[in-house]
Amino acid sequence: METAVLYHTDQAAKTRRDILKAAVDIASAEGLEGLSIGRLATELGMSKTGVFSHFGSKEQLQLATVEAAKEVFLEQVAQPPLKSRRGIPRLKAMLDRWLSYVERIVFRGGCFFAAASAEFDSRPGAVRDKIAELTRAWVLALQDEIRFAQGRKEIKGSVNPALLAFELHAYVQEANWAFKLFNDRSAFVLARRAIAQRIVTASGGRVSQKSKR
Amino acid sequence: METAVLYHTDQAAKTRRDILKAAVDIASAEGLEGLSIGRLATELGMSKTGVFSHFGSKEQLQLATVEAAKEVFLEQVAQPPLKSRRGIPRLKAMLDRWLSYVERIVFRGGCFFAAASAEFDSRPGAVRDKIAELTRAWVLALQDEIRFAQGRKEIKGSVNPALLAFELHAYVQEANWAFKLFNDRSAFVLARRAIAQRIVTASGGRVSQKSKR
Repeated sequence: METAVLYHTDQAAKTRRDILKAAVDIASAEGLEGLSIGRLATELGMSKTGVFSHFGSKEQLQLATVEAAKEVFLEQVAQPPLKSRRGIPRLKAMLDRWLSYVERIVFRGGCFFAAASAEFDSRPGAVRDKIAELTRAWVLALQDEIRFAQGRKEIKGSVNPALLAFELHAYVQEANWAFKLFNDRSAFVLARRAIAQRIVTASGGRVSQKSKR
Repeated sequence: METAVLYHTDQAAKTRRDILKAAVDIASAEGLEGLSIGRLATELGMSKTGVFSHFGSKEQLQLATVEAAKEVFLEQVAQPPLKSRRGIPRLKAMLDRWLSYVERIVFRGGCFFAAASAEFDSRPGAVRDKIAELTRAWVLALQDEIRFAQGRKEIKGSVNPALLAFELHAYVQEANWAFKLFNDRSAFVLARRAIAQRIVTASGGRVSQKSKR
């Protein structure tokens, strides 16, 4: 393969990444539907044709944007907890990383998937299916960690994993909602206290609120 | 005043109500930004001019739509619990009515305010301010009922009302989110169990899960 071709390919991949970086940020705040080729071209100082050549259609652009957001979520939220011991320490790390990704405003519109799911839940199609699949995977990962903690007797056997995951997931989504709407950081304090208390109760007192993760 | 004028005024008010009824339903599913005069005219079989004459601008239409959604929320969710005794019975009724309004699909897009706040949280302006004001009023109403219940010793004095309201509010929003995205009614079962359990814990066991509201 010639160097020129290689360069061209590398450059194209870099441009595509730049477009998607802007796309994820815009979509988190203004919605995936507001993600027009024209809007992206303006934001990036590119021609519409230039942007369009990387994606065949608006739906392809939206799907690629969801995929790019997934990569950021994996890197910022889902992967770091893998360094924590399995069970309650990892469960806490998952929730803590998720909250901190909202708090640090990784995306200007808060949690990308919260915004995208609220926008697409009534719009059937490939984009909605992708968002549902990815968010469900995260809920299932929380449930799985709860079950593991039950196996280690860190969480009471009488606790329903789906119910506990529902509650913990709800606290982070609520913090994201309240922070974005009221611009009030106290929502993170409330979410952290709710999570800590709920885990203490679920552990039957085996885990204290002050325990290290 | 002549009869013709009266009729005209009544008719205009009725048309405005019809437009707003459609607008709230569309906005709950497709967003307030998707609420164009043209879209409404098509849905209602009216001329664009006819729809436009009732609202001066898109922002006015959006604000009127939020106001119309508020009326439905008051009638369907906020007012019926006023018949329940204050304290825990009323708190439970507020949450139950809210859940059932989502479950009965009063608006095709689920909870209007959940959809609207996710859409507008990054769009400064009068519409966002109105949505924030109304949703905050509901959070404060929940807190107020919790404080009342504490005054009656139905909820432990050590419970933080803002934290408990945060948790209970989170469960309903989570159910709305999960139901809309996964089309899975088990989210309502989980939310009702989470609410019941959380209230039992907050009451220090004074309220049993089976207690009547």
